[in-house]
Amino acid sequence: MFYHDGKLQYDVKVDKPNPQFAKMLQQAIGGIEGEMKVCMQYLFQAWGARGPEKYRDMLLETGTEEMAHIELLATAVALNLEGATNDVKDEAAKDPFMEQIMGGANPRHILSSGMAAMAVDSNGVPFNGSWVVGTGNLAADMYANVMAESAGRVLATRLWKSTDDKGMKDMLSFLIARDTMHQNQWLAVLEELGGPEGVHPIPNSFPQEKENQNFNYNFLSTHINGDSKAHGRWSEGKSIDGKGSFSFEKATPQGRKPDLGAAHPAGFAQKEQMMENDSFIKSAFKKIKD
Amino acid sequence: MFYHDGKLQYDVKVDKPNPQFAKMLQQAIGGIEGEMKVCMQYLFQAWGARGPEKYRDMLLETGTEEMAHIELLATAVALNLEGATNDVKDEAAKDPFMEQIMGGANPRHILSSGMAAMAVDSNGVPFNGSWVVGTGNLAADMYANVMAESAGRVLATRLWKSTDDKGMKDMLSFLIARDTMHQNQWLAVLEELGGPEGVHPIPNSFPQEKENQNFNYNFLSTHINGDSKAHGRWSEGKSIDGKGSFSFEKATPQGRKPDLGAAHPAGFAQKEQMMENDSFIKSAFKKIKD
Amino acid sequence: MFYHDGKLQYDVKVDKPNPQFAKMLQQAIGGIEGEMKVCMQYLFQAWGARGPEKYRDMLLETGTEEMAHIELLATAVALNLEGATNDVKDEAAKDPFMEQIMGGANPRHILSSGMAAMAVDSNGVPFNGSWVVGTGNLAADMYANVMAESAGRVLATRLWKSTDDKGMKDMLSFLIARDTMHQNQWLAVLEELGGPEGVHPIPNSFPQEKENQNFNYNFLSTHINGDSKAHGRWSEGKSIDGKGSFSFEKATPQGRKPDLGAAHPAGFAQKEQMMENDSFIKSAFKKIKD
Amino acid sequence: MFYHDGKLQYDVKVDKPNPQFAKMLQQAIGGIEGEMKVCMQYLFQAWGARGPEKYRDMLLETGTEEMAHIELLATAVALNLEGATNDVKDEAAKDPFMEQIMGGANPRHILSSGMAAMAVDSNGVPFNGSWVVGTGNLAADMYANVMAESAGRVLATRLWKSTDDKGMKDMLSFLIARDTMHQNQWLAVLEELGGPEGVHPIPNSFPQEKENQNFNYNFLSTHINGDSKAHGRWSEGKSIDGKGSFSFEKATPQGRKPDLGAAHPAGFAQKEQMMENDSFIKSAFKKIKD
Amino acid sequence: MFYHDGKLQYDVKVDKPNPQFAKMLQQAIGGIEGEMKVCMQYLFQAWGARGPEKYRDMLLETGTEEMAHIELLATAVALNLEGATNDVKDEAAKDPFMEQIMGGANPRHILSSGMAAMAVDSNGVPFNGSWVVGTGNLAADMYANVMAESAGRVLATRLWKSTDDKGMKDMLSFLIARDTMHQNQWLAVLEELGGPEGVHPIPNSFPQEKENQNFNYNFLSTHINGDSKAHGRWSEGKSIDGKGSFSFEKATPQGRKPDLGAAHPAGFAQKEQMMENDSFIKSAFKKIKD
Amino acid sequence: MFYHDGKLQYDVKVDKPNPQFAKMLQQAIGGIEGEMKVCMQYLFQAWGARGPEKYRDMLLETGTEEMAHIELLATAVALNLEGATNDVKDEAAKDPFMEQIMGGANPRHILSSGMAAMAVDSNGVPFNGSWVVGTGNLAADMYANVMAESAGRVLATRLWKSTDDKGMKDMLSFLIARDTMHQNQWLAVLEELGGPEGVHPIPNSFPQEKENQNFNYNFLSTHINGDSKAHGRWSEGKSIDGKGSFSFEKATPQGRKPDLGAAHPAGFAQKEQMMENDSFIKSAFKKIKD
Repeated sequence: MFYHDGKLQYDVKVDKPNPQFAKMLQQAIGGIEGEMKVCMQYLFQAWGARGPEKYRDMLLETGTEEMAHIELLATAVALNLEGATNDVKDEAAKDPFMEQIMGGANPRHILSSGMAAMAVDSNGVPFNGSWVVGTGNLAADMYANVMAESAGRVLATRLWKSTDDKGMKDMLSFLIARDTMHQNQWLAVLEELGGPEGVHPIPNSFPQEKENQNFNYNFLSTHINGDSKAHGRWSEGKSIDGKGSFSFEKATPQGRKPDLGAAHPAGFAQKEQMMENDSFIKSAFKKIKD
Repeated sequence: MFYHDGKLQYDVKVDKPNPQFAKMLQQAIGGIEGEMKVCMQYLFQAWGARGPEKYRDMLLETGTEEMAHIELLATAVALNLEGATNDVKDEAAKDPFMEQIMGGANPRHILSSGMAAMAVDSNGVPFNGSWVVGTGNLAADMYANVMAESAGRVLATRLWKSTDDKGMKDMLSFLIARDTMHQNQWLAVLEELGGPEGVHPIPNSFPQEKENQNFNYNFLSTHINGDSKAHGRWSEGKSIDGKGSFSFEKATPQGRKPDLGAAHPAGFAQKEQMMENDSFIKSAFKKIKD
Repeated sequence: MFYHDGKLQYDVKVDKPNPQFAKMLQQAIGGIEGEMKVCMQYLFQAWGARGPEKYRDMLLETGTEEMAHIELLATAVALNLEGATNDVKDEAAKDPFMEQIMGGANPRHILSSGMAAMAVDSNGVPFNGSWVVGTGNLAADMYANVMAESAGRVLATRLWKSTDDKGMKDMLSFLIARDTMHQNQWLAVLEELGGPEGVHPIPNSFPQEKENQNFNYNFLSTHINGDSKAHGRWSEGKSIDGKGSFSFEKATPQGRKPDLGAAHPAGFAQKEQMMENDSFIKSAFKKIKD
Repeated sequence: MFYHDGKLQYDVKVDKPNPQFAKMLQQAIGGIEGEMKVCMQYLFQAWGARGPEKYRDMLLETGTEEMAHIELLATAVALNLEGATNDVKDEAAKDPFMEQIMGGANPRHILSSGMAAMAVDSNGVPFNGSWVVGTGNLAADMYANVMAESAGRVLATRLWKSTDDKGMKDMLSFLIARDTMHQNQWLAVLEELGGPEGVHPIPNSFPQEKENQNFNYNFLSTHINGDSKAHGRWSEGKSIDGKGSFSFEKATPQGRKPDLGAAHPAGFAQKEQMMENDSFIKSAFKKIKD
Repeated sequence: MFYHDGKLQYDVKVDKPNPQFAKMLQQAIGGIEGEMKVCMQYLFQAWGARGPEKYRDMLLETGTEEMAHIELLATAVALNLEGATNDVKDEAAKDPFMEQIMGGANPRHILSSGMAAMAVDSNGVPFNGSWVVGTGNLAADMYANVMAESAGRVLATRLWKSTDDKGMKDMLSFLIARDTMHQNQWLAVLEELGGPEGVHPIPNSFPQEKENQNFNYNFLSTHINGDSKAHGRWSEGKSIDGKGSFSFEKATPQGRKPDLGAAHPAGFAQKEQMMENDSFIKSAFKKIKD
Repeated sequence: MFYHDGKLQYDVKVDKPNPQFAKMLQQAIGGIEGEMKVCMQYLFQAWGARGPEKYRDMLLETGTEEMAHIELLATAVALNLEGATNDVKDEAAKDPFMEQIMGGANPRHILSSGMAAMAVDSNGVPFNGSWVVGTGNLAADMYANVMAESAGRVLATRLWKSTDDKGMKDMLSFLIARDTMHQNQWLAVLEELGGPEGVHPIPNSFPQEKENQNFNYNFLSTHINGDSKAHGRWSEGKSIDGKGSFSFEKATPQGRKPDLGAAHPAGFAQKEQMMENDSFIKSAFKKIKD
């Protein structure tokens, strides 16, 4: 169960409302790098967690924290939209609604939400549930979470760079800090699980001898003539998971050209895709015509 | 530029066509864990790569390989759909189209594609470009890639477990092997970039002193009364990035209850949300009515 | 069956073409508050209507009217886009295509539709069929319709406020009037069905004694310490449906902490999520390895 | 800020796991009638609330409760999926993974989430942020909320009817009860706001004299020859909002046939859509060719 | 403006209700090959039509007809769902709701719409406004329309093959016939516009001498070694538009390997992607840190 | 299998970076008229091709070429975004990040991708797999391809018109030329297949005598009173496919008004939609209450 106290996890002050910045902040709410995604992702992972209880609890703790981050940002959007409809200025020369739109504001912040945050990204594209990743495999999920917090911190620093509003910079410096912690937190689980050698290849419960042993540690170069700069740690030496040795090889086809044969009459391809001489097909045709 | 030779990277044989398995294989083509996603993700990362040339080249190499994986799987889907319309059987008692649908096949494999693979997942939900992640930050992208290959290998092992078709198991054991390599490959880049201490917090180019120093290494517990099992590597000791020390703290609000004030007349909220006594608002109202 | 006469339900005049306003008008065409949604919603409700014939007929009447509203707005968009490509001005200093884009116009109005309306909202996000609500329950549908016309009228008034083009204001004042009627119209059905006491709880055909009798008229406060301002008509007195009495209670968990146990081997979680000592699991593991 | 206690709001017991029912329950999690939608809807409405504080608080209270409902249902899905991979049965004849799929289970419950709930509906279509409605107008939002709880209760009763699992029926009877309360709760706000006469037409802050006075209380019949059964409370008598009188009228076009004229050369329509004789257009053409 | 008469364009009889066929029919309603798409496509094309009036009128005529086709199919879906909840049979052994789901029915036909058609495809994926194509170029639009009617007729024949219900086969034979007409109809416009030589390359208003003259009639083979079977009408002889001669050539890169240089500090890539020695970048860095 | 050489198919030069043009170029990458769509469409058609081998090969050839076009455009986007963060200008008056946004740039080009191309259209709406059309019918697919290249060339000419950057105009003139070829190429297949008379009605494998013979070559006018300008090649003379004669007829309903009857109790409509007197329904009701 969940509870609230109505207060913000951190202070949200906007010195100078800015509808364009409100639009940009939406990326951190409803974007693929945003707080709705991590909130739902950690909670769904918690609700489906099997195995050691502490990971379930941790996911629940942080998922609940992220809910407060959405709240922070939604408040920031609303405050930045103050003034988006300041149409009561003395002069009537220009319509400020339109001015905002022409200035690149999200028109739906005025038209749809009446100056409030929405469950969309900075282009107004709605949040999508497919972004909520929970695989049932703890290690895969931890990487999904590190990745989410990495993209999230990159986003937050870019937002920080995009404003000189003191209040906004302060709020963002808090969120950036939390992303630092959360990156470390999910990495800590991976360390507990044994680090790269213990964890990989994910899933570590699949009997690795069942995978094709000729192609599991080779960097396959698809360059047409081998003139590739793609040499590095991944092309020689022991593999990171400690279970193989890297090599660099030119990719070559192991299979043949596929041939799907003629189309079956019941699929209503063009006649030219079928072989009408074939007696089997003929009888199929006949059957359709009857 | 890109080239092809029309051959498959690995042999695709289907011993016994199975439209239900064709439906499941679609997850590995057009699903969020699928090959279209990794193909496009690596290629877009390559095309936008700034910095050392070798990473760009490596992404291009592997992105091009993934294109061949889509081809493998699309061929496998088409072969599994042979027989999806075997309506020329001797007895006509039951319509086999309908039988397949009742058996859980994807109806669009018959109705829309005429027994061929589609750019959708195992529920028929279309591939979505939002899944193609490229942040412009190499380390964040590598985590996105490790995560993609981890979820991808988990998926492939589950598909492997879901079939006893020898040909399909063989093809999947190849794809599982490639996922092993690719997990290692992206981890190898992260090692080259300095490992957790060199890489984190991502982005490492943001001046870390600008983030809030009071909240960057604390596990904040949102549990209502502290009865949490969420203790572990993340709640004490040196942080994984080596730049701080973990602590466990109860989360408390640092901000106040937000107050957005009354609604502005131009937003056409209900009158009850406005303060009509306010002279400023009154004149705004008057203006609207004129 | 449907017919048309090629004329507009109301005159559409645009005094001064304005591509930015064209973009905003798209919200009223392809947005979630828009005419495509209500048109399809009323028609689908009509086509699936079971029960008294008059409601089916009424839905069909108004669904057909809404088709004319899309037509009005699509015409208004096209007329507002006149001039979006006025590149034949005397001076060639600035490219006017680009100017429009920089001014916040929808680039697809130029690039994709060649200056015509599209089935998208004001951010260019496509119309989505999930918005077409028809539950098969007449009362639930009427609320969906009141809500659609309420959000629709709010939108139309905001558009009205956003322009000083006389033609556009006139067209919008017509649409606003129709929304007034349609709000009243759906409410009239709810009155016919018996008003709140006859209609609620929806569905009124479910035997209400089967619902949990301890939690059906209590406002549950999730506030952490009870310091909530959320007292009102809903927290005391007779319920609106006349079938219970409101109360205000602190929410408390009635259930326990869930425990999903260990992961099953066939799901390929990490090994650490399974209990390998368990003999059942062991044999499952063994089976996978064979 | 938000907190949790890790316990369920109500007990979740599943007597007999059933992957098909797990699939159906997803509608109540990630569907348009589901708990993610109402949770996010109430919270976003709260975060953007302007005007009387008590409504903001109430929305926050109930939004937080809905979070616990997602938790209930996610737990129910996970428990119903126990057994979805019971491949350790004595006989190995049929693969139970495939059996479930053939039986209509959601393949992603096995392939993607490893037997856990996802942010999707009962067809596997992802949750969509566009469903989160907050207009900034309190009355419109209350109708959106009544509608959500009506569709939600209809859904819950249908789920209740679809199972004879005692645990599931018990959980659903709790959720059905909460929907009863929430329908009443939002109606109570509408009563506080003055009922139909005080509230409508929404928004009540728009000066109603600005809407077209000839079309605001007329039921317009689009029936081709007037043979319509669509007579009722809405076609005569005082309007529900008390501000007009209903009438029944045949719809007739007030506008003319629209004429958008010839296409402008810069839009690259076909030549046949342009008027090349026109000297203005000719010079435009010439300019493009230069 | 639009009108209706409440009657069906063609008779809809269902001899034996079949929820699985109802699910399949949805492809013809809300799928990308479906009637909602063509209806909206023709109407939007009409509403945006510039140039000769007769094409606008024709589009309006047929768009209006397609509305009646949605009506036909929606009625067919509702009739096929009769019996989807026949739970009042004598024996209570099995729950028929669940039986339908296990038999591959769309669960939302029961849970969400209460046995009525929805604006979704055969997998329950919602109709998407992006499918409504209108380019503003008449010839491009005619091809979009021929394509829509071709895919539509293919779909309808597959549905016809999937059922032996006499009523459904009769209704489909009507829709198949209309698709025949509509294919011919849009082709007739292309003939009026001058056929391939008059129409192509589309748009014919672009001065063709501005396109690169070295690459406009060459089939470029991307085969790695020229072992391609892709020879045919397109690789030699006069081009179909009569404005060039086909040739077959091996594709070769005309450009160089792209180099995007180092990342700019303000984008917060990893430090390793930047060149810190560069004095320009150094000052940029310094600025960020200040 | 696929290969690459890391070079561009054509030179990409940007004389003056322009983030707004970068945004517009996205339409040609991830839009419905874009290169991702045609690339995937041709490849999926190839992978599912049944019938003559040469068409499969041709599709594979050109699908692979389109991959290079995405590469071209992605490079062009990245180069146009140089300068999108030129925040190191001497004066600090205005923040250039914000300036770009206010100027209509895609905020995600800065916030999400760090100045690189994304898999989205010019409004930031993600690429959608539903656009990848392959019907299994070669002729239908060829029309889909002609249509794609027609819309694509229209788009490219509009982009060409929207810029005066020499490098961009040169690159676009190459892409426009390729679209000319590809339009011709797919038309050439249709010619090989026999032209309109051989190809239509699509699918030509359906026994045409099974379609309703009364409605397959009639233009049905839905105009309310026959005052239609929609006369032309399609309303008289031999049909384009040579298999019938066009006529012009007034559309009239062939069917009756549908009647779905009363709602079944198990669907939980409102009671008013059911017929409680009916004894069958009564017993159904009773059963639910038990």
